[in-house]
Amino acid sequence: MQTMDGRADSPELEQLYRDFDANSMAPLWTQRDDLMPPVPSPKAIPHLWKWRTLYDIAKRSGDLVPVGRGGERRAIGLANPGLPGTGYATPTLWCAIQYLGGHETAPEHRHAQNAFRFVLEGEGVWTVVNGDPVAMRRGDLLLTPAWNFHGHHNDTANPMAWIDGLDAPFSYYTDVGFFEYGSDRVTDEASPDISRSERLWGYPGLQPLSEPRRLPSSPLSAYRWEYTDRALAAQLELEDEGHPATVEQGHAAIRFTNVTTGRDVMPTIRAEMHRLRPGASTPPRREVGSSVWQSFEGSGTVVLNGEELRLEKGDLFAVPSWTSWELHSDSGGLDLFRYSDAPIIERLGFNRTLTAPPAG
Amino acid sequence: MQTMDGRADSPELEQLYRDFDANSMAPLWTQRDDLMPPVPSPKAIPHLWKWRTLYDIAKRSGDLVPVGRGGERRAIGLANPGLPGTGYATPTLWCAIQYLGGHETAPEHRHAQNAFRFVLEGEGVWTVVNGDPVAMRRGDLLLTPAWNFHGHHNDTANPMAWIDGLDAPFSYYTDVGFFEYGSDRVTDEASPDISRSERLWGYPGLQPLSEPRRLPSSPLSAYRWEYTDRALAAQLELEDEGHPATVEQGHAAIRFTNVTTGRDVMPTIRAEMHRLRPGASTPPRREVGSSVWQSFEGSGTVVLNGEELRLEKGDLFAVPSWTSWELHSDSGGLDLFRYSDAPIIERLGFNRTLTAPPAG
Amino acid sequence: MQTMDGRADSPELEQLYRDFDANSMAPLWTQRDDLMPPVPSPKAIPHLWKWRTLYDIAKRSGDLVPVGRGGERRAIGLANPGLPGTGYATPTLWCAIQYLGGHETAPEHRHAQNAFRFVLEGEGVWTVVNGDPVAMRRGDLLLTPAWNFHGHHNDTANPMAWIDGLDAPFSYYTDVGFFEYGSDRVTDEASPDISRSERLWGYPGLQPLSEPRRLPSSPLSAYRWEYTDRALAAQLELEDEGHPATVEQGHAAIRFTNVTTGRDVMPTIRAEMHRLRPGASTPPRREVGSSVWQSFEGSGTVVLNGEELRLEKGDLFAVPSWTSWELHSDSGGLDLFRYSDAPIIERLGFNRTLTAPPAG
Amino acid sequence: MQTMDGRADSPELEQLYRDFDANSMAPLWTQRDDLMPPVPSPKAIPHLWKWRTLYDIAKRSGDLVPVGRGGERRAIGLANPGLPGTGYATPTLWCAIQYLGGHETAPEHRHAQNAFRFVLEGEGVWTVVNGDPVAMRRGDLLLTPAWNFHGHHNDTANPMAWIDGLDAPFSYYTDVGFFEYGSDRVTDEASPDISRSERLWGYPGLQPLSEPRRLPSSPLSAYRWEYTDRALAAQLELEDEGHPATVEQGHAAIRFTNVTTGRDVMPTIRAEMHRLRPGASTPPRREVGSSVWQSFEGSGTVVLNGEELRLEKGDLFAVPSWTSWELHSDSGGLDLFRYSDAPIIERLGFNRTLTAPPAG
Repeated sequence: MQTMDGRADSPELEQLYRDFDANSMAPLWTQRDDLMPPVPSPKAIPHLWKWRTLYDIAKRSGDLVPVGRGGERRAIGLANPGLPGTGYATPTLWCAIQYLGGHETAPEHRHAQNAFRFVLEGEGVWTVVNGDPVAMRRGDLLLTPAWNFHGHHNDTANPMAWIDGLDAPFSYYTDVGFFEYGSDRVTDEASPDISRSERLWGYPGLQPLSEPRRLPSSPLSAYRWEYTDRALAAQLELEDEGHPATVEQGHAAIRFTNVTTGRDVMPTIRAEMHRLRPGASTPPRREVGSSVWQSFEGSGTVVLNGEELRLEKGDLFAVPSWTSWELHSDSGGLDLFRYSDAPIIERLGFNRTLTAPPAG
Repeated sequence: MQTMDGRADSPELEQLYRDFDANSMAPLWTQRDDLMPPVPSPKAIPHLWKWRTLYDIAKRSGDLVPVGRGGERRAIGLANPGLPGTGYATPTLWCAIQYLGGHETAPEHRHAQNAFRFVLEGEGVWTVVNGDPVAMRRGDLLLTPAWNFHGHHNDTANPMAWIDGLDAPFSYYTDVGFFEYGSDRVTDEASPDISRSERLWGYPGLQPLSEPRRLPSSPLSAYRWEYTDRALAAQLELEDEGHPATVEQGHAAIRFTNVTTGRDVMPTIRAEMHRLRPGASTPPRREVGSSVWQSFEGSGTVVLNGEELRLEKGDLFAVPSWTSWELHSDSGGLDLFRYSDAPIIERLGFNRTLTAPPAG
Repeated sequence: MQTMDGRADSPELEQLYRDFDANSMAPLWTQRDDLMPPVPSPKAIPHLWKWRTLYDIAKRSGDLVPVGRGGERRAIGLANPGLPGTGYATPTLWCAIQYLGGHETAPEHRHAQNAFRFVLEGEGVWTVVNGDPVAMRRGDLLLTPAWNFHGHHNDTANPMAWIDGLDAPFSYYTDVGFFEYGSDRVTDEASPDISRSERLWGYPGLQPLSEPRRLPSSPLSAYRWEYTDRALAAQLELEDEGHPATVEQGHAAIRFTNVTTGRDVMPTIRAEMHRLRPGASTPPRREVGSSVWQSFEGSGTVVLNGEELRLEKGDLFAVPSWTSWELHSDSGGLDLFRYSDAPIIERLGFNRTLTAPPAG
Repeated sequence: MQTMDGRADSPELEQLYRDFDANSMAPLWTQRDDLMPPVPSPKAIPHLWKWRTLYDIAKRSGDLVPVGRGGERRAIGLANPGLPGTGYATPTLWCAIQYLGGHETAPEHRHAQNAFRFVLEGEGVWTVVNGDPVAMRRGDLLLTPAWNFHGHHNDTANPMAWIDGLDAPFSYYTDVGFFEYGSDRVTDEASPDISRSERLWGYPGLQPLSEPRRLPSSPLSAYRWEYTDRALAAQLELEDEGHPATVEQGHAAIRFTNVTTGRDVMPTIRAEMHRLRPGASTPPRREVGSSVWQSFEGSGTVVLNGEELRLEKGDLFAVPSWTSWELHSDSGGLDLFRYSDAPIIERLGFNRTLTAPPAG
């Protein structure tokens, strides 16, 4: 132990530190450097998980671990190696692969945490949100905002896997979580092509007059791949035609938004889809706040704080706060899904971005 | 002239009133009753215009009045009989039938006034908004918000007519208008099926990352009938299935909204589409603020302050502030387009609504 | 009558125009120039009213016109010569001198219109707002936002005069007004030094936890001269000390704001106080929207669209939309109160400002 | 290890769990109970720190630990016993006693973290915020929002102690912190009675026209005890007079707000002052989010999750999320300062409150 200016210990100083401990006190000067670094210095590390590995292990869980009440979900979290013992992808974000066998049901519950699902491949499962069955298909983003009952139901004989995203680490840290069990089965086992939510809300710029407006989370439960794909393709076509549309040359991207406000889909989670043309690159960027990406189609590389990682279909990677990231697409192009805690960061005024020019 | 309590004139009082006049003064007590009525007491009156008449007269204008620079548009305003000499539909809203002959062009200009077009029937004209050609087709709502250059171009040999809606009376009264001429021809004579605006913005809940967010007016230039129709149909189907979706029994309705905010399409104008099932009715309602309706499909009646008026395809009617209105659909159902000054009223805190139960 | 390109009349054209009239139609092309001018072209004109004249005539009204129910107020509006027959200061703003004799009472009422009083000189009257007596003293701004009951009560033997500002012309034009009589006497004849509103809300940055927050109008009923004066003096002192504080060299100004939101005091009216150092000038400015100014202390000149007008204590002038205005202070300095329709203009997105450098 | 339904281990299951570990995966079902509790289940515990103890130990630090660059502040954090190793008062909030000896200076720095000081007793120190010296006196709340340079300077020969509040634990957890050193001395050693910030902003409802409006944090650097005290006293007087003003019988409270928006003083921290009449009590309340209270004047008790703790002048206590709290005042009344993470909770939609009636 020492003083602020590094002077050596004295018996009085040692006694002082003992008295700090004994009285539940902690001096700032011994931890200021760590607590208040010059730039964000996350404990979480940039990390990549291979989809093939995740899927194989999830499949084995499907054989060994029945889904049911209590555990609630056969979901296996991506555990950031920099956050040992937590099972968190980043300090704020949970990301799991969920696996549901043929004709299985994950029982209904609700929680204060905001959640979504994103589907890499497959179909046949309906997620039932407050009694409204929502088909899950390739490329779809499905929302279950705070305090909506939801369960999942496999209407087919085939298993299906997808990723779950939640703000559970943030909610746990800040002690905001509530949780309640619902029906052991889903409350509606129908398997309609589109949900009631989409029938009410799924049109560009149209709102039902019957509904309260400006909701905290989007009432649109499903963002279908058909539209996402079309929007990304159009941006690249417009770029070809000489019109501003893309984030930067060869990089198209859309944000999924709350249809009642134009803001993020949920108060704590931002969701986006990115498309890189064959051979395209993004310049290195640093942002305050963390995110998780999933490679959806195509292949390429991501460079995280200077380390290059190969991306194949389904691979997931975590980008902690202020980590430099840049993307490169192979000759087949590259589609990526991204979600982040950006709404938390922005609503509290902590957002900063640093974009470097691409290395010449 | 007299005092507040009705006492007869005196020479001193007469001199006082003469001095008011001479010094540009006006006593409140002689006009308070008129200036501050117990409830809104509009000079504009409820009025119906028959589409057939409007169209025939517009067509004759097409033969007699060439469209061109200066007059700018072959548009003929609906002149509320309660507002003589103005050509206004209501104190805040302009509504005109615009007629464009085969291969004619209405030259480009821009103005601080917010404007839209709504198409009852026909096709073949493109409205070019800041250089982006937007096809106009039956049932479409097309926006030209404040200060966007716009012109119209008929790509066919056939004439086309539609309605224009503007906040011009409001803008004129409050002295907020700016106006600027643009190109004599439209800047892009292409006739694409969908506009660049729709390619960027026309997806449910998706926003391009490249664009500034939360714009004052919607960047989506066209709200297509295909979606409007589908949304209204879905509301009635959901009602049949026992789910909340409609405004009230048999009455479906959507609001066109700014895709970046979920608020009204433009800061001064609200636009909606309503559908009544065959035989359905709405209860009498009074609202602060004025609106203009157009019967789009089907037939029925509207009751305005107790007077029943027949509605056939294309008929337009003005509903001044605090006028009681109720709609009844004939056996074929009834679709109506509506626009109003509700955003002005609501943003300034003057909104009130009074809904009476339907007469038993 | 003629066509858009100025061709002479024909019998067919004359018939067409007759049919327009007969069918409540009005062509745009004959009025487009007037309806949509290149820049705002107000009918209201810049005009100055001398306080001495206003006061003398108001005083004569005090002898001849008893205040009472029906007429409600002994208030005499400043009638813009460009708006004959209206009694309006500008198209949106009412401004009146109100005169209350010793021990007189102006009965209570409430209305949807927003109103305030500003006191040039004198004291002894309490305005009772929803039962809360608010003392009126020199330099104070007193609010009576929409739908608050209010009456005025002279607790002394001496008459008092002040100005009333309302959005009544705007409310009348847009048909949003409601009006209701209240008590014939004020409901509380006490004469406390400060109101209950001030006791709850009148502290810098402090809000009572018991109150709903973010109200549409300020719950603070009185903005006292003591604070206004101190704030203006401090800005000039800070300027002297080399710190940014003033609008421009020698020109201090504060805005009165809604203490729950930091926005304007009421949804339709902005209120400000300006102070020019001895000999200071402002550059010519044009703004969309209209305002009324009152010279409060000192003397100087205002130049409106190039015409210079002398300002002495109490003089009022109207500045229509897009009128160029600039202020010059005499050797004693100049304090001015201003109110405007800026919140209407800004909330609807019509605001523009043009500032020219001072003539060299 | 076991399955969701509690079945015993098998070799396959053990291998599965080993593979989870090896591949940075963590099953949800083993941690769901802990991660997503039925109600918030904080690790932080309710805890009380006695001011006398804190002060004595801080004073000894004053003798042993010179203040200076690197450690930056002689501040000693209240270390919640439920969060060992952190030095945090709650998961989101830092609270420290800071001690500055006669004529000492704490050097300038700035950080993304939001901070404030609250003064229990004493005076003589100026906190210099972006070059503006702000006097610190008994009962004052002093703000240093994100990224404002600030240092402290003791202008007297006497030591002074106060509490520092920061969002540092939240910022650390979410990796949003930036930090930069400034001047080793404060940039202005003047000791004015009031700061430039107060001279510009410290008036009820008045805003300088020269300043950008609607700032994320309050530009008013000091909330003076004079006003806080007067506001609390007025609420109790109004209660005596029969008017609504207090939170509940005998419990007055004000919130310190951002003078440009009426929202909380800083994006992450809410600050309030509470006053209980002699003998008054509050009903038990539970709220999502955590807070720290300091007893400012008088004495009484606080009951936290059923445990009663004595409060004397200066005592501090931490209230973790969803902890039941109730206050009781002794015969001399009780004043308390409180700060919390409520803006974080509310902006993200996690707020809930449960108020129980007082035990009969």
